[in-house]
Amino acid sequence: MADEWEPGEALRDIADLDLDRAARRGYPEAVYCEGKTAEQVGVIAAAVGERGARTLFTRVDKAHVEAILAALPDAAHDQTARLVAWPPSPPEPSGGQVLVVAAGTSDLPVAREALLVAQHLGRSADLIVDVGVAGLHRILSRLDELRSARAIVVVAGMDGALPGVVAGLVSAPVIAVPTSVGYGAAFQGLAPLLTMLNSCAPGVAVVNIDNGYGAGHMAAQIAAPVTS
Amino acid sequence: MADEWEPGEALRDIADLDLDRAARRGYPEAVYCEGKTAEQVGVIAAAVGERGARTLFTRVDKAHVEAILAALPDAAHDQTARLVAWPPSPPEPSGGQVLVVAAGTSDLPVAREALLVAQHLGRSADLIVDVGVAGLHRILSRLDELRSARAIVVVAGMDGALPGVVAGLVSAPVIAVPTSVGYGAAFQGLAPLLTMLNSCAPGVAVVNIDNGYGAGHMAAQIAAPVTS
Amino acid sequence: MADEWEPGEALRDIADLDLDRAARRGYPEAVYCEGKTAEQVGVIAAAVGERGARTLFTRVDKAHVEAILAALPDAAHDQTARLVAWPPSPPEPSGGQVLVVAAGTSDLPVAREALLVAQHLGRSADLIVDVGVAGLHRILSRLDELRSARAIVVVAGMDGALPGVVAGLVSAPVIAVPTSVGYGAAFQGLAPLLTMLNSCAPGVAVVNIDNGYGAGHMAAQIAAPVTS
Amino acid sequence: MADEWEPGEALRDIADLDLDRAARRGYPEAVYCEGKTAEQVGVIAAAVGERGARTLFTRVDKAHVEAILAALPDAAHDQTARLVAWPPSPPEPSGGQVLVVAAGTSDLPVAREALLVAQHLGRSADLIVDVGVAGLHRILSRLDELRSARAIVVVAGMDGALPGVVAGLVSAPVIAVPTSVGYGAAFQGLAPLLTMLNSCAPGVAVVNIDNGYGAGHMAAQIAAPVTS
Amino acid sequence: MADEWEPGEALRDIADLDLDRAARRGYPEAVYCEGKTAEQVGVIAAAVGERGARTLFTRVDKAHVEAILAALPDAAHDQTARLVAWPPSPPEPSGGQVLVVAAGTSDLPVAREALLVAQHLGRSADLIVDVGVAGLHRILSRLDELRSARAIVVVAGMDGALPGVVAGLVSAPVIAVPTSVGYGAAFQGLAPLLTMLNSCAPGVAVVNIDNGYGAGHMAAQIAAPVTS
Amino acid sequence: MADEWEPGEALRDIADLDLDRAARRGYPEAVYCEGKTAEQVGVIAAAVGERGARTLFTRVDKAHVEAILAALPDAAHDQTARLVAWPPSPPEPSGGQVLVVAAGTSDLPVAREALLVAQHLGRSADLIVDVGVAGLHRILSRLDELRSARAIVVVAGMDGALPGVVAGLVSAPVIAVPTSVGYGAAFQGLAPLLTMLNSCAPGVAVVNIDNGYGAGHMAAQIAAPVTS
Amino acid sequence: MADEWEPGEALRDIADLDLDRAARRGYPEAVYCEGKTAEQVGVIAAAVGERGARTLFTRVDKAHVEAILAALPDAAHDQTARLVAWPPSPPEPSGGQVLVVAAGTSDLPVAREALLVAQHLGRSADLIVDVGVAGLHRILSRLDELRSARAIVVVAGMDGALPGVVAGLVSAPVIAVPTSVGYGAAFQGLAPLLTMLNSCAPGVAVVNIDNGYGAGHMAAQIAAPVTS
Amino acid sequence: MADEWEPGEALRDIADLDLDRAARRGYPEAVYCEGKTAEQVGVIAAAVGERGARTLFTRVDKAHVEAILAALPDAAHDQTARLVAWPPSPPEPSGGQVLVVAAGTSDLPVAREALLVAQHLGRSADLIVDVGVAGLHRILSRLDELRSARAIVVVAGMDGALPGVVAGLVSAPVIAVPTSVGYGAAFQGLAPLLTMLNSCAPGVAVVNIDNGYGAGHMAAQIAAPVTS
Repeated sequence: MADEWEPGEALRDIADLDLDRAARRGYPEAVYCEGKTAEQVGVIAAAVGERGARTLFTRVDKAHVEAILAALPDAAHDQTARLVAWPPSPPEPSGGQVLVVAAGTSDLPVAREALLVAQHLGRSADLIVDVGVAGLHRILSRLDELRSARAIVVVAGMDGALPGVVAGLVSAPVIAVPTSVGYGAAFQGLAPLLTMLNSCAPGVAVVNIDNGYGAGHMAAQIAAPVTS
Repeated sequence: MADEWEPGEALRDIADLDLDRAARRGYPEAVYCEGKTAEQVGVIAAAVGERGARTLFTRVDKAHVEAILAALPDAAHDQTARLVAWPPSPPEPSGGQVLVVAAGTSDLPVAREALLVAQHLGRSADLIVDVGVAGLHRILSRLDELRSARAIVVVAGMDGALPGVVAGLVSAPVIAVPTSVGYGAAFQGLAPLLTMLNSCAPGVAVVNIDNGYGAGHMAAQIAAPVTS
Repeated sequence: MADEWEPGEALRDIADLDLDRAARRGYPEAVYCEGKTAEQVGVIAAAVGERGARTLFTRVDKAHVEAILAALPDAAHDQTARLVAWPPSPPEPSGGQVLVVAAGTSDLPVAREALLVAQHLGRSADLIVDVGVAGLHRILSRLDELRSARAIVVVAGMDGALPGVVAGLVSAPVIAVPTSVGYGAAFQGLAPLLTMLNSCAPGVAVVNIDNGYGAGHMAAQIAAPVTS
Repeated sequence: MADEWEPGEALRDIADLDLDRAARRGYPEAVYCEGKTAEQVGVIAAAVGERGARTLFTRVDKAHVEAILAALPDAAHDQTARLVAWPPSPPEPSGGQVLVVAAGTSDLPVAREALLVAQHLGRSADLIVDVGVAGLHRILSRLDELRSARAIVVVAGMDGALPGVVAGLVSAPVIAVPTSVGYGAAFQGLAPLLTMLNSCAPGVAVVNIDNGYGAGHMAAQIAAPVTS
Repeated sequence: MADEWEPGEALRDIADLDLDRAARRGYPEAVYCEGKTAEQVGVIAAAVGERGARTLFTRVDKAHVEAILAALPDAAHDQTARLVAWPPSPPEPSGGQVLVVAAGTSDLPVAREALLVAQHLGRSADLIVDVGVAGLHRILSRLDELRSARAIVVVAGMDGALPGVVAGLVSAPVIAVPTSVGYGAAFQGLAPLLTMLNSCAPGVAVVNIDNGYGAGHMAAQIAAPVTS
Repeated sequence: MADEWEPGEALRDIADLDLDRAARRGYPEAVYCEGKTAEQVGVIAAAVGERGARTLFTRVDKAHVEAILAALPDAAHDQTARLVAWPPSPPEPSGGQVLVVAAGTSDLPVAREALLVAQHLGRSADLIVDVGVAGLHRILSRLDELRSARAIVVVAGMDGALPGVVAGLVSAPVIAVPTSVGYGAAFQGLAPLLTMLNSCAPGVAVVNIDNGYGAGHMAAQIAAPVTS
Repeated sequence: MADEWEPGEALRDIADLDLDRAARRGYPEAVYCEGKTAEQVGVIAAAVGERGARTLFTRVDKAHVEAILAALPDAAHDQTARLVAWPPSPPEPSGGQVLVVAAGTSDLPVAREALLVAQHLGRSADLIVDVGVAGLHRILSRLDELRSARAIVVVAGMDGALPGVVAGLVSAPVIAVPTSVGYGAAFQGLAPLLTMLNSCAPGVAVVNIDNGYGAGHMAAQIAAPVTS
Repeated sequence: MADEWEPGEALRDIADLDLDRAARRGYPEAVYCEGKTAEQVGVIAAAVGERGARTLFTRVDKAHVEAILAALPDAAHDQTARLVAWPPSPPEPSGGQVLVVAAGTSDLPVAREALLVAQHLGRSADLIVDVGVAGLHRILSRLDELRSARAIVVVAGMDGALPGVVAGLVSAPVIAVPTSVGYGAAFQGLAPLLTMLNSCAPGVAVVNIDNGYGAGHMAAQIAAPVTS
């Protein structure tokens, strides 16, 4: 068993990084860090630095951050969003406006992940917090912002009703993100996930529970500059 | 096996009817007909007629209705609600106002069952149909009616978001009824059930999927005249 | 990424507090603290103190409590119920009597949360503990108390059978709260939740697993003084 | 593909019947007919007749019954229980008393299956119907019968609370049978199944949904004459 | 019970049609017919004809079609898609190209529904059938078509793997539609639904099982002409 | 909020102990300690000592044990079974033999709980460990022991197949206990629970996941001395 | 909507048949007929005949069979297995022996599908029926046959315990197929599926519920002649 | 309670080790350590050493490793795979080639467990990492390796699509292992499990979530030298 995995092992053995993906698909690579060791993430970060490709590290914990910063000292870390971005500044925005809406304060980490991903993929993006469905007047008071966006991400836990309400008010597509926040029968996000899939308003599509990265990416694609 | 059950058998062998329950609990008995044979329901209806106790027959099919009407010819049948009531007219209303709200046309059978049950238990009750959450202006235009009720039943399938929105607008308690209407991931009412249990607005409690009878009964109890 | 969230940031950025909700709906606001950082809760508590609005903080942990007491030193903390109330004393009770019944000692935290919420929303409320369905004589010995309440909250885990038994004995509506206590196939409260939704006795409606706050709020609404 | 299965084919090809099982385990064989064709059941019935072994045919439909009666004309058929027994009369009873309790009329088919199976396995057995948990007085009025049994089968759908209540009143073991009767969130018997598994009263064990055969068999084993 | 619902009753009593919704949100109304009676659908169709608003009727059965055609004789019916459109021809296409991809022949009904909805909402849309993930060469041979679309709908049952594979090849957003086709453990579409939510490739968002309407609508919104 | 619960509070406020239950049902009380604080358990233990009633404390952790031993210094503690018994010795055995069979070493805690409970309820009881279904010869070599028992408890996780195999070999009833041991798709005991409920051999009934207490209790009841 | 699908339409529009797949992967194509119309299946059958490629049609109903036989009159149809094969005779067998074991008579359709598929993919294959786990002696009496196979398919519903028992007796790999036969808590095959996934004996892998085709195919691959 | 389990107790009391199983089935025993105490594992390791039988210890934690190494100092430990093997070197390989493919770096622990098990059971085995379905070119570039294997293990979490894609490219059987890695709706491996069971490509069979041991074992059996 001499061939056991060891820190320092060549990158090729742990992850066949797809660094020219940006070229093929038009968007930078993201490294999902949960489930990877800090050593593995550090090796990947070093490779990222060598080749110079714009990269996002998602779902980072403290040890991941240290390993990344050791390799990429100028990388930007957002603690709430559990995200590290390199290079630290997003590119100049192009395309349409992305708007991220969070139902409650507890949805903030996922919402911020979506926000930052959209920005680092090249969109102008804003965030509205605490617009719950139980207080309709709060939603109605932001109608102008909602209607000026080309893609809207709505993050909500518990009853997950907000995306359907928002979609009924706008003509832009709504990307709904269920969160795992809430009491017992929320079942770690299953309840809002089902609500969102069953939204009575057309114009809602859903990404995985707590998947702020996927929502921000999708929104950036929808709001991309139209080339033809 | 000579003792197999036969139509004509004494009532005692199929159902130990609790006809003095109205006295003990203050509300008439209901006979849940689904899963009972027409013969069994007919035997029960005959006993109801003999003792003269106000009774509701719920979830009736065509054969049940015929068996009941044979024994209680003046009973009232509502096809949409799948309900037979005897005596046919509700008692004089007392207590507060009950309001039943149905999100969509497909929720009508359950909503009507709730409405008629509340009326036959002695409340004044009204019905509003097709007030979906995807069209907020429809809800807001009924605000006065909503705020004048002492108990509100909200019937909704699909995303089940309506009860939470209504509860955020009123101070009366809201009884939410999920319905089994909808696309695949509604999972026969599981999705709206979970949504309603996770409602962000306090003041929502939930009864079983499609259980219009239970919702109407609960609403009648909440809006009962205050005796002390 | 200079715009990362920081303690000290203005309240508006974390939670658009709805402090005039009491006026609109007639009941004070509650701040659900689970999933919020202590800093966020502290900022909210300071705002509560400034505006003077009656507020409940639910699902508090130790750090939350310290943050709240720093801003509202006279707030009342109940450790069992995980609740902080400000102002510390409930208002003068009005309306009908609320009764909270807990099936077992392990259901006490949820039951106490319901009790205190009902009291702080202005009702007279009492608590009966350890009235399990496996010992019917215990329930029968409390019949007078049960029948004198205008709204009953029944908290139960495991088999969740108690609310149906209670509802069969009284004419007041019963709010059932499943708890996440119990052996394997209780599935964190799913089993009693289903039991309660399928209660054979009408007059039972259900709130979310462990949701003592919602049950106490609903009971307070049901037992509210009748204005008309 | 000349070897396709055909009616008339030798018994050995469809079912390796275990007709000396009665000798090994002490109880007659049962043939579960659902999912078998009438031809297959007929071939089995003929073999039963030839060898003369006491046999129960469970979950029979009309075509099964005809096929069995063609081979065993004196077999006894109970339509409610969906059972055919051969020879038609149960053996002389021995051992203790078995009591079958059905919560509602809709639970009758499953309860009758349990009753007849216990009788054909050699026990004295009785049936009590419609002893719901929502009407405690009905249960309490049958206490003597309940306490004189050596094994009790309790059949219940919907909330499934009855077995726990019964077990709290007696010292005999209770076999609980959930039924697939009921509204939406009963989920075809899942709800009462979970309730019964989580019974607060010890002395309850559970068999499969609608499995009256298994419950009657288990009860007959528990109440078997003690040999040593 | 003289107030039972009857065919001929005023439209207002069954559905508060939102016919000026096209103006507010920019897209025509759709009437989801499953769960509505033919009479109800006929009343709605008559109202549609009177006001002249472009409308889609989805999930129609034979009786629904007859009721609609009685009121709107020139409406177009697509049997595979279970859709009726009025007026029969889609508007002149604008915006970007929509591409609908169906994994297998069994996914055709849902795929066609998405196709026709996108066309009737004003997009140019095409359909590719039988591009399963088990035969990669089929996908790779359609790469040009896939890369020229501005929004791609991928319809798949069974393992639901196709959307992730497609999303890895293109930069346009992919709307995934799980279908209820397949063997046992597909659980009526739950399996592909979960697969799609967990897609390893970013750029996938999911709508409800079999919800071709929602997917086509979302795709039309994404590919809408950019106004600013 | 001066009325918050405090250690030292009277027993009546935390648990209405049913200490004469032994008289009514014939078996001693058990105190389920999980979810109770050490203080609460200590108060109960003191009451137990005062009245002298035989009692089992189940699911104890370290703090519970200390609190019990402070009040009942001669109580017996079994660490594997997480059980404390008082008085420490079981009563003289009567009735038939109970046999507890554990499929694997990991099932030992639950199996030992069942064993000790049966002994403290007055039965002679033995334990056989590691008789997995994947090694049939091990089961077959214990056939004599299996056939001499009047009640058999079979404890198994993972595939849960053992109870059915055992039941096919004996005529005594088998109480099956699923355990929460195992890989992913065991789903914390759900997999063996379902297996056991679907056992092909009659004579199997099931108690809750990990519920060794319930299984031992049920076995003791089944093997009780026959009085009549 | 002139482009609606019509019988007679070119094959390319309904299914991009992969008829050279046999060349690439070494095994003939199968056409899964459930969910396809008879017209669609007929068009495919005609194409199969033209190109002469060996093909299996699975999950056929009566209408499918007629459509296939119209195009391929000499095709062989097995009603129990719901399979049509063309050409009608399997190829000369090569490689190792495949053994298919069915737990009960009700598992016969799935078991026969596996048997015929293995034969038509070029293996020698046999079938053993009704070898239930509740009668161990039946399994033990077939040990020689079991040990002479190079791949074993075990088909079982209900408790699904048979594959693990078989795998403990042999060194060949076992392909387990859960079936949707059984009582309530079998949940259409979910219970045996979970059992099989949790098999205590290594050497078991599982295919989808009722998927006899997949099991026979996998067994044929495992027992393929070793080329190198 | 003097008979409580103690370290030092005879092996027979904790695990009836089946050390001659290698002889009967042809493969060494494995000891699943999760859920066993370090003392129990140490006792087993000592017995293993005494009898000299080749053994694998799976799912070891730190304490297990220490206990094993105390008894078997030359055993080999692989930290990533959580495996200890004794004797430390695998036997000389025979039979066909096994290939293990891991979709992502996070799947490495399970993949390595499969790899090492196949090697210790006597096969030549290799590992390919990070061949995700979202980057088809990575898979296509390894086609030669994939086609030269006699058994392929594919380990994947999240969408679980990789096994179906691989199976579509090769003629060897594919053993799929779902892993519990991923976002919310992966539900601890349930999502990839269902995907794999529903694979559109035949030639895929599935083992339990995270069950690298079972997959490696199955692959070793499939690729075993053909004896006849």
